[in-house]
Amino acid sequence: MPPEALVFDAYGTLYDVHAVIARCETLWPGKGAALSQLWRARQLEYTWLRSLMRRYVPFSQVTRDALAYACGALELPLDKSRADALMQAYLNLAAFPDVAGMMRKIRGRKAAILSNGSPDMLDPLVQNSGLAFDAVLSVDAVKIFKPAPEVYALAEKQLGTKRIGFVSSNCWDALGAKSYGYTVYWVNRGGTPVDRLGFQPDQVLGSLEELP
Amino acid sequence: MPPEALVFDAYGTLYDVHAVIARCETLWPGKGAALSQLWRARQLEYTWLRSLMRRYVPFSQVTRDALAYACGALELPLDKSRADALMQAYLNLAAFPDVAGMMRKIRGRKAAILSNGSPDMLDPLVQNSGLAFDAVLSVDAVKIFKPAPEVYALAEKQLGTKRIGFVSSNCWDALGAKSYGYTVYWVNRGGTPVDRLGFQPDQVLGSLEELP
Repeated sequence: MPPEALVFDAYGTLYDVHAVIARCETLWPGKGAALSQLWRARQLEYTWLRSLMRRYVPFSQVTRDALAYACGALELPLDKSRADALMQAYLNLAAFPDVAGMMRKIRGRKAAILSNGSPDMLDPLVQNSGLAFDAVLSVDAVKIFKPAPEVYALAEKQLGTKRIGFVSSNCWDALGAKSYGYTVYWVNRGGTPVDRLGFQPDQVLGSLEELP
Repeated sequence: MPPEALVFDAYGTLYDVHAVIARCETLWPGKGAALSQLWRARQLEYTWLRSLMRRYVPFSQVTRDALAYACGALELPLDKSRADALMQAYLNLAAFPDVAGMMRKIRGRKAAILSNGSPDMLDPLVQNSGLAFDAVLSVDAVKIFKPAPEVYALAEKQLGTKRIGFVSSNCWDALGAKSYGYTVYWVNRGGTPVDRLGFQPDQVLGSLEELP
C-alpha cells in the first residue's frame, strides 16, 4: 500500500543551507567553511544533548548557541548584528533545484514538513519560499528534537494516518522515522554510506525527483 | 559542603584512547588520524541517536557499528580480525599521566567510575589498569547513554549520596551531570570553550591533579 501522505524534513532536504555558508564566508573571509562545519555539527549535537538532558529550548536558540560556540572555538569575533544577519539568512534559504519538479509530481497528494526548526524560523522560511504544504509541523509542539519517537508521532497525529512516506537527506533522521514505523526515503545527494543504527531506509534516492 | 564521593568518566578522562588511534594508524598507514576522528564522532553520535530512538545497544556494539561506518565512509577495508584488534586495544588503555598523583591525593575518599562503556569493555579495562574504585558503574544498568539524567541518578543510587563531585573531560558530560545536580569538575586538557548548553561547570581543571 502506498503512503497516504508525504512528510519532508526541511533543512538540507527541501532547503539548501548554502546561503548561510556563503554569509559566513562574507563575514569572516577564509573562515566560512570551517565555521559553517563546526556550527552545523554543534547545532545538531546540542539538539541531541538537550533532548537527552530534558532541557529543550527552541531551535532558534540552539542555533544561536552553536554559532556562539563555533565562533569562540575558532576565535572569530561575533556581535549581535553578525549573529542576527546569519539567523536572517536562515529565513530566506533557496529550495534545492530538484524541489520544484518533485512538488509538481506529488500534486494532489497530502504533503507536510516535519522539522527541528522552531516556528519563528520555519514559518517565515516556508512563506518566503512560496512552497505550499498541508501542514508545517515543528518539534516545538512536543519539546524534544529528532529522532525521538514523539516527533514522528506528531506527523501521524496531525495528518490522521500512519501510512506516511518520510523523506529526509539526514540519514539518522530517516532511520529515526523508520524506527518509528514509517516508510522511509533517504535522499543521499552526497553518496555517503548508510548510518549503522539498526535500520535501513526503504529506498535511497539520488535526488528528490526520484521520489515514487 | 564538599562532595562525599567523586565520580569519574572513563574514556578520555581517566584513560587515554591514544593507543586506539595508534592501532588505527598501524592497520591503515596514513589514515589513522582521519579514521579515529570519524570513528569517535560517530561513536558518540550513535549513543545519542540510539538513546533518543529508544534503541539502546551496549557500547561495545555502538563502537563496532561506528567503526564499520567510518571504515565504509573512508573506503578502508575492515575485516573481523582488524575490528577485533581495535576492540582489544580498548581493553588495555593507559591511564593519563595525571591519574596516579590524583588517585594518591583522593585516597580514603569514596570514588567511582560512571561510564558509557558496557561491562564487557569497562571491567577488563579497569582490571588491566590496576586502578581501584569503590564502584565501576555502566550505563548498561539503565539502557540509555549520557547525558540522560537516568545515568547520573545511577551514581547517586549506588553510592547512597547526592553530594557527588563529578569529573569529566567531556564538557557535555560534565554539563549533563551539572543539569542533574552534581558538583562538576570539567577537565579541559585541550583548552576548548565551554559548550553552550545552559549550564556551567563548577570548576575547570587543566589537569586531574588540580582536583580539590
